[in-house]
Amino acid sequence: MVKINVDKYKNLRRIIDESWINIHPIQRGGVLPPESKKTLLSFGDGYSTCDLCLEGRIDLVKAPPILDFAGDVAKFLNMDEVQFTPGARGAKQAIFKSIAEPGDTIVIDSLAHYTTYIAAEVNDLKIVEVPHGGYPEFKIKIGDYEAKIEEVKRETGELPAAVLLTHVDYRYGNLADAAEVGKIAKEYGVPYVLNAAYSAGVMPVNGKKLGVDFLVCSGHKSWASSGPIGMLATTYEFSGKVFRTSTIKGPWSGRAFTKKDVYLFGCPPVFGAPIATLMASFPHVVERVKHWGEEVEKVRWLVKEFERIKDFHQLGERPRQHTLVTFETPSFHKVAKKQPRRGFFLYEELKKRKIAGIHAGMTKMIKLNTYGLTKEQLQKVADAFHEIARAYGVEVE
Amino acid sequence: MVKINVDKYKNLRRIIDESWINIHPIQRGGVLPPESKKTLLSFGDGYSTCDLCLEGRIDLVKAPPILDFAGDVAKFLNMDEVQFTPGARGAKQAIFKSIAEPGDTIVIDSLAHYTTYIAAEVNDLKIVEVPHGGYPEFKIKIGDYEAKIEEVKRETGELPAAVLLTHVDYRYGNLADAAEVGKIAKEYGVPYVLNAAYSAGVMPVNGKKLGVDFLVCSGHKSWASSGPIGMLATTYEFSGKVFRTSTIKGPWSGRAFTKKDVYLFGCPPVFGAPIATLMASFPHVVERVKHWGEEVEKVRWLVKEFERIKDFHQLGERPRQHTLVTFETPSFHKVAKKQPRRGFFLYEELKKRKIAGIHAGMTKMIKLNTYGLTKEQLQKVADAFHEIARAYGVEVE
Repeated sequence: MVKINVDKYKNLRRIIDESWINIHPIQRGGVLPPESKKTLLSFGDGYSTCDLCLEGRIDLVKAPPILDFAGDVAKFLNMDEVQFTPGARGAKQAIFKSIAEPGDTIVIDSLAHYTTYIAAEVNDLKIVEVPHGGYPEFKIKIGDYEAKIEEVKRETGELPAAVLLTHVDYRYGNLADAAEVGKIAKEYGVPYVLNAAYSAGVMPVNGKKLGVDFLVCSGHKSWASSGPIGMLATTYEFSGKVFRTSTIKGPWSGRAFTKKDVYLFGCPPVFGAPIATLMASFPHVVERVKHWGEEVEKVRWLVKEFERIKDFHQLGERPRQHTLVTFETPSFHKVAKKQPRRGFFLYEELKKRKIAGIHAGMTKMIKLNTYGLTKEQLQKVADAFHEIARAYGVEVE
Repeated sequence: MVKINVDKYKNLRRIIDESWINIHPIQRGGVLPPESKKTLLSFGDGYSTCDLCLEGRIDLVKAPPILDFAGDVAKFLNMDEVQFTPGARGAKQAIFKSIAEPGDTIVIDSLAHYTTYIAAEVNDLKIVEVPHGGYPEFKIKIGDYEAKIEEVKRETGELPAAVLLTHVDYRYGNLADAAEVGKIAKEYGVPYVLNAAYSAGVMPVNGKKLGVDFLVCSGHKSWASSGPIGMLATTYEFSGKVFRTSTIKGPWSGRAFTKKDVYLFGCPPVFGAPIATLMASFPHVVERVKHWGEEVEKVRWLVKEFERIKDFHQLGERPRQHTLVTFETPSFHKVAKKQPRRGFFLYEELKKRKIAGIHAGMTKMIKLNTYGLTKEQLQKVADAFHEIARAYGVEVE
């Protein structure tokens, strides 16, 4: 047998612990509350949630109360039915697979997450993009959904198989007008997918009020869960289609699997820690979305503090409607050019101060997320950036 | 906002803890060693393994050493390349999607896991099953792979798109002759998929020696990991195909994602706890496969003890080559018919003794797994079954 050196896998620990301030753009909504860490440990083994599986599907397990939970999540989102998925990415693939044929066209926003593009690609779909308005706000031109649907109709003779909107985009953290797209989709009778990976779980999202047919959520991004886990919420109109069960039959054995979900791997691979922590954090999530306004106040305060640094400009819509925010930072980029470690100087200065989450090596633009951090923690972040600026000769107002 | 009662999700804990003996057929190979529980807690947040993601894909992350790990897993399995997947089920879907066209036929064993059938169904493939020999051994007729390939050739004019063998089946725990199928597949030039969900990680598996083109593994089933996580190992011949990267381009934005994996969601959803615990348990796994012989000895001992109970007969091949084992137990089924709680009497008697893992309500057949349990623990299991038998008037020899 070949010799493998396994030493590097021993005592594996994350460098960042609770003594750090983590402003990583994709991590804030996924931080586990303390009570969920105990649940995580208790359900650490892979099939720990399957001790009493009687129906062969994780969403139908009654103890722990996963069946009830799926119903409660549907209520919380104001949708009819919910299934768990391997991430929001898995939800999008399942939706496209179930409602589109290879060669069909879908209309998506041009700030969509890459997994939206990949979900189209793997299902052999063509995409048409709704433009954004460019620098500095990069707002999706919501009204253009109509023109793009017309364009698809004109060029293919058919309506698009679906329209998709990214509720809050990963790049600028803009909050798009989901209700407006809902109206347009309804008018044309085109199924409407809302990617709420950055919204549902941190802010109130009411699926039916927004006119949504498919609501895509991310547990590890925005529901304080360990994950990876996503949620696919839909209406009775579409649930039979996207959650359709297996009809295959073994030609020799006669075996059939009529309870198994076709588009989500039979039983979606979310058992164990992902679903257990998603449930354990649900009380926390239900409560926290009520306080979204306070979170938005905090990020607006930080924007003001950051823009005191010379040539720091917030990109994306103003004022902020979401805690994910991007700045262009040409003054820091100029500094980086003269540093022996180039762009890594910023990463290292922040590391010294136990602030994590700014992309290592990047100084032209920086992206961060303030969600769930206290005012005191954000004051430390602001102070750190001011200090670093001054130390490298960049003016602070 | 609608009122949701979240009390049932508070203080969520698994009933079974370390004071129990768990003989659940699908859980034994996934039990976390103590050192991995610390890693689990440290990497509890969803994107915790992505702090230093520079390439946008989890398998390329260098700290923690995931890139190295993928290489070490490939070495361990004697294959060329490895990617992580949302379970073995996700690996099979990716393989079929990448090497077969809708309408193609694949040849599979008739004891394949349901996720193999679903992977065929979602990819619109036809299946042909290789029969097993029926009661009592249910051994797959390995030689029939040849006849079935010929049958497909005759009826469709083409070779099957792939042959798949389940190395150890979930039903009887039979160990199939994977090398023999490897020879047949090679002879015909048909890609060969080995589902090693119940073998790799608990016993030595040498992919190239078995002539395998695609080796499918399950972290939460057999690599002592939290999961859900699978591994797809392949050869250089097929890696470009199954791990092909994205070529889609935003028609308006020009956006492209050339590093993203098409068939595995761009970046496979295994970040955080699944990949962290898989790595942390790897030293343990590399060591434990060397002791497979002792594990087989223990299950053979338990079979002997169980068959002392009247009308308990082990099903599947004899002697045992794997720790997953099924018994027909008509004597207990007869008891169940006279009990007020029917088949649940057994489950409840075992629960009193803190023995978990026998399917609740089932007494006609029982299935269990002895992997990783000590001789003392198995003695307790044998004693419990003997005691219960006697208490309900079933003879023990």
